[in-house]
Amino acid sequence: MFRVDLNCDMGESFGAYKLGTDEEILHYVTSANIACGFHAGDPATMRKTVQLALENGVAIGAHPGLPDLVGFGRRNMDITPQEAYDMIVYQIGSLYGFVKAEGGVMQHVKPHGALYNMATKHPELAQAIARAVYKVDPELILFGLSGSELVKAGETIGLRTAHEVFADRTYQQDGSLTSRRQPDALITDHEKAAQQVIRMVKEGKVLSQQHTDVSIKADTVCIHGDGPHALVFARRIREHLTASGVSIRAVGHK
Amino acid sequence: MFRVDLNCDMGESFGAYKLGTDEEILHYVTSANIACGFHAGDPATMRKTVQLALENGVAIGAHPGLPDLVGFGRRNMDITPQEAYDMIVYQIGSLYGFVKAEGGVMQHVKPHGALYNMATKHPELAQAIARAVYKVDPELILFGLSGSELVKAGETIGLRTAHEVFADRTYQQDGSLTSRRQPDALITDHEKAAQQVIRMVKEGKVLSQQHTDVSIKADTVCIHGDGPHALVFARRIREHLTASGVSIRAVGHK
Amino acid sequence: MFRVDLNCDMGESFGAYKLGTDEEILHYVTSANIACGFHAGDPATMRKTVQLALENGVAIGAHPGLPDLVGFGRRNMDITPQEAYDMIVYQIGSLYGFVKAEGGVMQHVKPHGALYNMATKHPELAQAIARAVYKVDPELILFGLSGSELVKAGETIGLRTAHEVFADRTYQQDGSLTSRRQPDALITDHEKAAQQVIRMVKEGKVLSQQHTDVSIKADTVCIHGDGPHALVFARRIREHLTASGVSIRAVGHK
Amino acid sequence: MFRVDLNCDMGESFGAYKLGTDEEILHYVTSANIACGFHAGDPATMRKTVQLALENGVAIGAHPGLPDLVGFGRRNMDITPQEAYDMIVYQIGSLYGFVKAEGGVMQHVKPHGALYNMATKHPELAQAIARAVYKVDPELILFGLSGSELVKAGETIGLRTAHEVFADRTYQQDGSLTSRRQPDALITDHEKAAQQVIRMVKEGKVLSQQHTDVSIKADTVCIHGDGPHALVFARRIREHLTASGVSIRAVGHK
Repeated sequence: MFRVDLNCDMGESFGAYKLGTDEEILHYVTSANIACGFHAGDPATMRKTVQLALENGVAIGAHPGLPDLVGFGRRNMDITPQEAYDMIVYQIGSLYGFVKAEGGVMQHVKPHGALYNMATKHPELAQAIARAVYKVDPELILFGLSGSELVKAGETIGLRTAHEVFADRTYQQDGSLTSRRQPDALITDHEKAAQQVIRMVKEGKVLSQQHTDVSIKADTVCIHGDGPHALVFARRIREHLTASGVSIRAVGHK
Repeated sequence: MFRVDLNCDMGESFGAYKLGTDEEILHYVTSANIACGFHAGDPATMRKTVQLALENGVAIGAHPGLPDLVGFGRRNMDITPQEAYDMIVYQIGSLYGFVKAEGGVMQHVKPHGALYNMATKHPELAQAIARAVYKVDPELILFGLSGSELVKAGETIGLRTAHEVFADRTYQQDGSLTSRRQPDALITDHEKAAQQVIRMVKEGKVLSQQHTDVSIKADTVCIHGDGPHALVFARRIREHLTASGVSIRAVGHK
Repeated sequence: MFRVDLNCDMGESFGAYKLGTDEEILHYVTSANIACGFHAGDPATMRKTVQLALENGVAIGAHPGLPDLVGFGRRNMDITPQEAYDMIVYQIGSLYGFVKAEGGVMQHVKPHGALYNMATKHPELAQAIARAVYKVDPELILFGLSGSELVKAGETIGLRTAHEVFADRTYQQDGSLTSRRQPDALITDHEKAAQQVIRMVKEGKVLSQQHTDVSIKADTVCIHGDGPHALVFARRIREHLTASGVSIRAVGHK
Repeated sequence: MFRVDLNCDMGESFGAYKLGTDEEILHYVTSANIACGFHAGDPATMRKTVQLALENGVAIGAHPGLPDLVGFGRRNMDITPQEAYDMIVYQIGSLYGFVKAEGGVMQHVKPHGALYNMATKHPELAQAIARAVYKVDPELILFGLSGSELVKAGETIGLRTAHEVFADRTYQQDGSLTSRRQPDALITDHEKAAQQVIRMVKEGKVLSQQHTDVSIKADTVCIHGDGPHALVFARRIREHLTASGVSIRAVGHK
């Protein structure tokens, strides 16, 4: 039977600052990537988000980012692999504290923003991140862009990985995402977005912007929790997938 | 047989900034309180300090502090018990990441600076800290000022605790430390300091500045790792204790 | 002729985090207190807020706070007067950079949150803050709670000061604000709020919750920019004041 | 007559963390680049360093860096020109607060670390920085690597600039510094270092590692304040220059 995971970044509030629609989006996703205080999130937000995820039966993952709160972890930084390793271990650990305190289990780790993007292409950075995850807990599942250096590094070290795809982004013939600077980068129609995911899951293929089929592995779909239409989009994607016989389940669940 | 633990704050460097004499002081102490990034410490320093402690067979503890890097966690802040709980869980977790990555075990938690002092007197804050430690891992040992609200809270919730005493500080007849603002607050003579500890350990008593004996429990002694004479002082205290038949052992060791 | 200033905290966004209704509230107030990066605000937000204030002809002030972003500067910290002095000089300077870059003039300084509250009661802290303002620029106007140690310290050192009152808060017979923990702390009816301000401005008196008249000086009124009714409240207060013949003008304007 | 400025980074301590030999190195240099809190420095350190510079008659400059305390501002970050502009304005302003409070004058701005290096090569970043300096105060002198995009941008916008050279670094035939990764990057012999500077100042030339003469403008020489031999090196460079008839004077002094 076909199955796929829906994951969403959350716990991105900070102190007096609120961000996202965590309580609502949790109804539609199966894996929560929780910010760990470097690019977003603070201890109180982390605790509440872990509690919310547990209440909703949503699998919990750490969402470590670069130490750049003002830039929301979206600006590339020239960090060494060792620095990446250290900041990943620290952030997984910090979330682990809350997960353990609430009696939960951590399922996965998905790097955030610039760290995610850099690890997509740079093998040494990807290996350092994979090693950090593995050393903290070899049972953790590493989320990374489908086919990226990050998931490769995870597989090499012996981690279970989840290849991540996007419902609302178009693809290039080399399997990469169309740059957001291109006018055709986004898919705003939820039916079209769902069809793209369904085909990825069932056939392992995506139609590129160059009208060629590209092989792609789809273990988990990135769902956005902010923006005006995020909730509707998430709900519709879920409905389309279910209707087409794709089971929505957390990657780590049986 | 009499025994006592010698603990020392370490891992207090930050980025380009170096502090302390961790490599040397580790030869003399049995428990290391490792800063977790809020008042001092950064991920790289935490990793290295955990490695050093393991290499030296020194037991590892988290040393969580207030989020006040510029004030080194020494300035009281009006935090709520819930805020204390959250920052303790976060910081224990962050160190836990490195301990797990290095294949070690975390023995204890000792709050730092202003957080330690505030928890000495405020029952609600003490209870929140004890609860944070307990919920992350009920096997952890909570270090607090001997006879303080913090160790009481730890005992009440079911944690093992370690009553901490000071070799180089004088005591008042109510069992509190003489304020550093008083001229007679410090004991600089290591033999006198050692004798104070030996009596605390063997007789459970300390002579106060008012010339009365005060009952005191001494499970662990705070050793300072900085200052010009820190290493000599630590070595001499250890020698005196050993010579008098007091075994120097980490609190959590058999 | 009677006159009063309406001031509002703004520029409290931070990176990806948005807070407040700066663009709208600027239509109703005459002085803007702009956050300087310690409790809220970041360089980009400061620049934009300075530009907005200048476009709206609203006088600009620095709104320095404690270095506590996660606590939004609302938690008391045991800082020394020297530390207060240093953080005030730094933050005034930082805003001054943007004011100078945009060709504007800085009118005033109003400490934020816990720093404001602590300076209300502690003469040494108040004096340190006043001295910081004076040394950076003796032409700056110091805003503080009406009758507080802060305005006294400002007057003593030779600064022009603005006694601040609240439209939406009730007063005690000693002239202090009713604690927010009391059920009668807030005035939610804008007409009642406006009448309180009008009487403060015209008669220098406010009716306390103990039904006695208390003398009070009202140079500037604190207007809140967030909350669901903030904009309506601000507009109505302004209308009531104008209708009763009170001129709404920035403290520093002729 | 030949003249040159000797500049040194300082004020790089942070809270409990001490760095550098500011008090001693101030005897040998004529311009002080003072950290502004982003990569190093805190308000108390900034105040003390400004006071020290004034006491020693050393010209004061802002030394703004990337917001990366743990990386000491040495890691490149993908910031936009607008972000660079904003962080420069903020940091110049913050130091300006202390300079004004102490009755001094700010002479110059020299970006720190990765910001300096990025501005050497990227025209848009360089222009944003130059514009920030100009808009805060067009009388400020912009320090940048000799011949770099940064000094070009400063000159284009109408700022006075200072071309910076290095005594202890070798040069390539294109005028760039030899990468620190090369074994021949450093000049450790102070006489050789001094001779290189003297020739730069008197002849406007430097001998590259490819044995060709390269034209170079030398208005100011970067002197390092840390490292075991920094003070001796600084003193000897100064002696050699003076002995050869080169006057040591701050760029902004008559």
